[in-house]
Amino acid sequence: MAAIKACNILITGANRGLGLEMVRQLVEIPYPNRQIFACCRDPDGPKSKDLKDLAKKHPNVVKLIRLDVANANSIKEAAKKVGSLLGKNGLNLLVNNAGITAHGNMLTTSAEDMHSVFNTNVMGPFTVIKEFIPYLRTAAKASGTPGMSCNKAAIINISTILASMTCVGEIYPHWTAFSYNVSKAALNMMTVLAGMDFKPEEILVMSLHPGWVQTDLGGEGAMIGVKESVEGMLRVISGLTEKQQGAYMDYTGKTLPW
Amino acid sequence: MAAIKACNILITGANRGLGLEMVRQLVEIPYPNRQIFACCRDPDGPKSKDLKDLAKKHPNVVKLIRLDVANANSIKEAAKKVGSLLGKNGLNLLVNNAGITAHGNMLTTSAEDMHSVFNTNVMGPFTVIKEFIPYLRTAAKASGTPGMSCNKAAIINISTILASMTCVGEIYPHWTAFSYNVSKAALNMMTVLAGMDFKPEEILVMSLHPGWVQTDLGGEGAMIGVKESVEGMLRVISGLTEKQQGAYMDYTGKTLPW
Ligand SMILES: NC(=O)c1ccc[n+]([C@@H]2O[C@H](COP(=O)([O-])OP(=O)(O)OC[C@H]3O[C@@H](n4cnc5c(N)ncnc54)[C@H](OP(=O)(O)O)[C@@H]3O)[C@@H](O)[C@H]2O)c1
Ligand SMILES: NC(=O)c1ccc[n+]([C@@H]2O[C@H](COP(=O)([O-])OP(=O)(O)OC[C@H]3O[C@@H](n4cnc5c(N)ncnc54)[C@H](OP(=O)(O)O)[C@@H]3O)[C@@H](O)[C@H]2O)c1
Repeated sequence: MAAIKACNILITGANRGLGLEMVRQLVEIPYPNRQIFACCRDPDGPKSKDLKDLAKKHPNVVKLIRLDVANANSIKEAAKKVGSLLGKNGLNLLVNNAGITAHGNMLTTSAEDMHSVFNTNVMGPFTVIKEFIPYLRTAAKASGTPGMSCNKAAIINISTILASMTCVGEIYPHWTAFSYNVSKAALNMMTVLAGMDFKPEEILVMSLHPGWVQTDLGGEGAMIGVKESVEGMLRVISGLTEKQQGAYMDYTGKTLPW
Repeated sequence: MAAIKACNILITGANRGLGLEMVRQLVEIPYPNRQIFACCRDPDGPKSKDLKDLAKKHPNVVKLIRLDVANANSIKEAAKKVGSLLGKNGLNLLVNNAGITAHGNMLTTSAEDMHSVFNTNVMGPFTVIKEFIPYLRTAAKASGTPGMSCNKAAIINISTILASMTCVGEIYPHWTAFSYNVSKAALNMMTVLAGMDFKPEEILVMSLHPGWVQTDLGGEGAMIGVKESVEGMLRVISGLTEKQQGAYMDYTGKTLPW
């Protein structure tokens, strides 16, 4: 099990798939005063039942937060709420996990799909980072140690190998999601630029590919289960240093080509 | 001078900067029955005067077309108009040149800037390609020769070296345009995927970096003038074959790293 020593952690899209499994595994790692802000857009809906049960079981650790990444006001509200719970230690680890896809090649993808996928997968992380950066700054300053790590202050953008111009060609004929790939390439550029912007403040930023995983998004035919993917991702996250600023890696720790 | 033998050519954002210079240089290359569809969003505005004068001087070659790439209806209207002028040969060369930028790093870039830059630089080419693809198909079929070239059927997306995750870091501190870089990385992914989508129909698609050029967008301190940039780009375009499908090159013919 990865030794993540981040005190306060926020995960978007935490009610199912990879986000939920990440909360599950983090809950199992004992850490004093840890708060996990498990965000989802509809805490009272049927798709949030498993997360709600988990939060009930660990009321001091798991804090269920309403956050729709496609809605700037919702993100602002969530930031206020989380801020009031954080105290003076700030937010150590922000995982931009929420994401959607839409099937289709260039000609069968609608403008509406392009916009909604862009809003969720690009504007989502963009706005979340902007609203939560004050708390990440607090954490970076509070840490008292030089360098970068997920225990100090880090932003993990959940990307995909399909964001890689080098690799996408092999997969596109079999898993054809034009709008998704375009949005995640944009997200990777965001990682690179945010990595430069936040370097002076020692806030780590990187893109992480979870593997091809059996979730609603990945499909039943995917190569690995959520357990293996999240174990790998937490291992990678726990080992990050300033050397990985702006990096693009997969859940096994391999650096991916852009 | 580059020997572009494309019969029918369309260029967006042709009223100033690189687009206007491209029309100027293409007009100087004699070619039977050539039509250059010089598109701009406000043909009657003061910023279109030079293009209007050029069109008046070469009425059989330069066709001024109203086309706002940020407006889907305007693109549809333009496609109808161009279709009626094209005849049975179709469109050989489509240059997605129109583009905008916005200054700012991640934190100083507004959501509004993100949306408007995305709409122009990503949704613009996306919608233009979708509306004009029937004419490119006509041209590809009409050509009668195998393989790909700009004389047969080609889409050139004017990208930038700032779309390169590998190269952007050197330039970002001096020319800080977060939204622009994110949008152009998305455009590069569009090039790669469209290249795969249109390969069976032998329609060439590639991304071209014009260099850092003295235009309103590039600024006065840029490294080269429009003449040198466009001469280089036309030379590169004229030499493209199916080997460059989905490629990312600069105006000197060098392949850029993603
Ligand atoms: N699975 C794979 O093979 C794979 C591969 C590469 C990358 N990824 C990436 O991994 C991340 C998680 O994907 P997954 O496989 O776990 O997908 P998933 O099972 O479909 O879960 C997606 C999660 O994102 C949430 N979400 C979607 N739109 C949202 C919004 N506007 N606001 C808040 N939450 C929203 C969903 O919430 P609702 O229940 O409310 O819809 C759900 O919790 C995504 O970024 C995805 O691109 C997955
Ligand atoms: N200059 C450089 O150093 C440089 C470097 C790399 C890449 N590029 C790329 O080269 C392309 C041309 O840039 P440039 O340097 O020639 O810039 P420019 O001088 O600012 O010209 C931009 C052109 O795009 C048009 N445009 C903007 N929004 C439009 C819209 N919604 N609909 C139709 N036309 C629109 C402008 O028309 P209006 O007059 O109506 O505004 C103008 O004709 C852009 O894609 C840019 O990203 C330039």
